[in-house]
Amino acid sequence: MRYELYYWPEIQGRGEYVRLALEEAGAAYVDVARESAGTPEMMRMMEEGDTPPFAPPFLKAGKLVIGQTANILLYLGARHGLAPKTEAGKLWVHQLQLTISDLVLEIHDTHHPLGPSLYYEDQKAPAKRRSEDFWKERVPKYLGYFERVLKENGGAYVTGRRVTYVDLSLFQIVEGLRYAFPKRMKAFEGDVPQVLELHDRVAMRPNIKAYLASDRRIAFNESGIFRRYKELDA
Amino acid sequence: MRYELYYWPEIQGRGEYVRLALEEAGAAYVDVARESAGTPEMMRMMEEGDTPPFAPPFLKAGKLVIGQTANILLYLGARHGLAPKTEAGKLWVHQLQLTISDLVLEIHDTHHPLGPSLYYEDQKAPAKRRSEDFWKERVPKYLGYFERVLKENGGAYVTGRRVTYVDLSLFQIVEGLRYAFPKRMKAFEGDVPQVLELHDRVAMRPNIKAYLASDRRIAFNESGIFRRYKELDA
Repeated sequence: MRYELYYWPEIQGRGEYVRLALEEAGAAYVDVARESAGTPEMMRMMEEGDTPPFAPPFLKAGKLVIGQTANILLYLGARHGLAPKTEAGKLWVHQLQLTISDLVLEIHDTHHPLGPSLYYEDQKAPAKRRSEDFWKERVPKYLGYFERVLKENGGAYVTGRRVTYVDLSLFQIVEGLRYAFPKRMKAFEGDVPQVLELHDRVAMRPNIKAYLASDRRIAFNESGIFRRYKELDA
Repeated sequence: MRYELYYWPEIQGRGEYVRLALEEAGAAYVDVARESAGTPEMMRMMEEGDTPPFAPPFLKAGKLVIGQTANILLYLGARHGLAPKTEAGKLWVHQLQLTISDLVLEIHDTHHPLGPSLYYEDQKAPAKRRSEDFWKERVPKYLGYFERVLKENGGAYVTGRRVTYVDLSLFQIVEGLRYAFPKRMKAFEGDVPQVLELHDRVAMRPNIKAYLASDRRIAFNESGIFRRYKELDA
């Protein structure tokens, strides 16, 4: 079966967490809006049927259409060995992924504190204040939490010896924060050495390494979740 | 087995989605921070162990400790007939719940657009702007989506004839929006008749009705997610 991934073609965004899992798994997939039908087919799927996705990304797997990033990863994790096999392990990894989902929303809020409908240009001052708070309170809390989880499990990855979809997502968080806030992230990195080692370990995995070097990996840009606005990085 | 729910004792907050599911299921549970050990035990559990929760609510089920609201509901739904039995049905209901999680975060942002660490009093002007956008763009999008899902399934509940944890959560969203934004919600309600009917149907379910009338149901207040600030409702 070839999966069909539906996501905005110009950005990494939330689709990237799914792409990383598909790539690590070596799964056959088509990134529909980029490679074939464009966004009209994606829009049509959100407008039709009994179980429409609320927003991209969503994944077509045979007859199933699965929406919400963490839900897609829950599904893929079980099928491609990217999550533990026990119920407790599955719930734990999903719990961590949902914490990453919350973090991703807070990252989005750093440049859109007044909501997703207004332009960044119309909310620069609040964005500056939100970014301050984000780096003072939230990044230490979130990444400090993952640092602690990594330490306590003492392994290469969050659950120990085997990579899971959460590890791939944590890699992406580090990449994204380095892109969007190079100065702030550089000053912070010393506090989370295990998270950084995890990042490097993921980057060296053969399938991920090949993916990152390919043109399937879209470059970060200012339409995505992680945006480099110099004034927010000071 | 008696479940142990860990959540802040003074508010409905995110814990309420779990309480509603436990109550509908008629499950035996103790609301630990309210009924016995208070918050110190909750804090201790977040500071110890290999798989610490990031934040309340979390649920202890035998040896399992499960964090993240939607993850707890995923677990409870499967055990108490509050979700479909098929894989497709389980994923669909979880997907809807994750969409509600996103909405809950946006509701929180209406009074805390500059982040959760600052007081509301220090962000009243941005909160006003965010609330405007929330009601203009986001409420119609989210509740319009659930209205459509209800219509297309033609049933009493989001998946048809049987109640699921998502229906209980949608009930809570309506209750909360009515509490926090009485004027705005009143003006909007005509657009989502099916959502309102669902709300009323949930409120009449015997276990939910008994719960709402009991002192286990905490009153809405200005420490929770849904806060009534007159200036944001105009």
